[in-house]
Amino acid sequence: MVNKEIISSKDNRKVKELRKLHQRKYRKKTGQFLIEGEHLIEEAVRFKQEIHLIVLTESAVPSFDVETFECMYVSDSVMKVLSSLETPPGMLAVVSYIPANDNGNRVLALDGIQDPGNLGTLIRTADAFGFSRLILSEDTTDPFSDKVLRSAQGSTFHLNIQSGSIVDAVNAFDGLTIGTSLEGSVFLEESTPESHVMVVLGNEGQGVSSAVLNAVDQKVKIQMTGFSESLNVAVAGSIIMHHFKA
Amino acid sequence: MVNKEIISSKDNRKVKELRKLHQRKYRKKTGQFLIEGEHLIEEAVRFKQEIHLIVLTESAVPSFDVETFECMYVSDSVMKVLSSLETPPGMLAVVSYIPANDNGNRVLALDGIQDPGNLGTLIRTADAFGFSRLILSEDTTDPFSDKVLRSAQGSTFHLNIQSGSIVDAVNAFDGLTIGTSLEGSVFLEESTPESHVMVVLGNEGQGVSSAVLNAVDQKVKIQMTGFSESLNVAVAGSIIMHHFKA
Repeated sequence: MVNKEIISSKDNRKVKELRKLHQRKYRKKTGQFLIEGEHLIEEAVRFKQEIHLIVLTESAVPSFDVETFECMYVSDSVMKVLSSLETPPGMLAVVSYIPANDNGNRVLALDGIQDPGNLGTLIRTADAFGFSRLILSEDTTDPFSDKVLRSAQGSTFHLNIQSGSIVDAVNAFDGLTIGTSLEGSVFLEESTPESHVMVVLGNEGQGVSSAVLNAVDQKVKIQMTGFSESLNVAVAGSIIMHHFKA
Repeated sequence: MVNKEIISSKDNRKVKELRKLHQRKYRKKTGQFLIEGEHLIEEAVRFKQEIHLIVLTESAVPSFDVETFECMYVSDSVMKVLSSLETPPGMLAVVSYIPANDNGNRVLALDGIQDPGNLGTLIRTADAFGFSRLILSEDTTDPFSDKVLRSAQGSTFHLNIQSGSIVDAVNAFDGLTIGTSLEGSVFLEESTPESHVMVVLGNEGQGVSSAVLNAVDQKVKIQMTGFSESLNVAVAGSIIMHHFKA
């Protein structure tokens, strides 16, 4: 049943509650997050995420069947305060993450990635190259923030993303484990592609932690010419995943 | 001669003039732009950029020799309005771009890239893989905005970056020209690495324009598995440049 009452007050209890989901601590507390725009909502529906609520403006024309979801209609000005975008797309959803049931043999482990754009791009690229399982250290930026979800372009819902200890994951992994390091002893270009592989990438400033580097099978670096001292972590990770891709 | 007078008024004529450089039209008009922080200034000095002025807070301790430059000292509150960063690093410089004298045989051509982070990352990656010449279409985002300069991490000054027509550049190039296309006819993985190569990347939404795709030798795509429909343009470009690297 669609309730066509339109909420136009920013002080509405439900509106205030939803706005809290822009903060990581409330996402963690509730296990819920917001996604915006038709593409992300479609992907969430298609990949069986738990959709708690869909919020729409009166003029929104969603391609998905709203009748099957609990919906809430809001005025443009309320959507503006709920949205994290300058130009709100007019629809958003409250979702809980259901990781894909996939214990694939290509794993991406992220050890303290800070930049939301980098994390989103890495999630999108992992999806493209068959790295279907991701392990995120506790100090990695939240994969369910709006910026990360947006740059991941729906790939979040295609993958099995979990958080946990990277050292434990490396030790438990049955296959080749590699970490990136500018002092790497193996050039990526000389590393034989393996089908069971865990790639560990580190923090933008500090790189992969020494505890993790001590645990991996290979410390890998990418051949560079020119005057550049290093690569962006999403770029390095993408080149490595491409090398080991499915 | 260092003038140790400290400017503390935001209404100071020179301060107001410098602030205008945050706008593209003033950068274009004056041929000048701002760079912030020690690393970028060091790179600009090392790679012979034209340094018009260095602006410092009283407490700044630069590693480079300030005596050789015209300097201006400002209060922390003035630096705050001049800076584009939340936490200003306490030093910035007014610079004109001197492209590297390099007509290298690996060229990156960018056809309408919009996102500053993508452009900066592509400049940094081009530097890493020996793509020493870049051609930017007129509708590509400004390479001298603070975000682009920051994500390029100084690589801007290592390269020969020019703007111009991509179709003209493709037609004039003596070597293999490739453009990315999701309807590409050649898989990157099957394309023989060449040392004389021009890689054309397109706009985040629309991709490479059809005029350019008609002009290139090869329309290339990257093999993908999984559910991802496409790659971020900086990721795709980086994987291609890595394939054709020096």
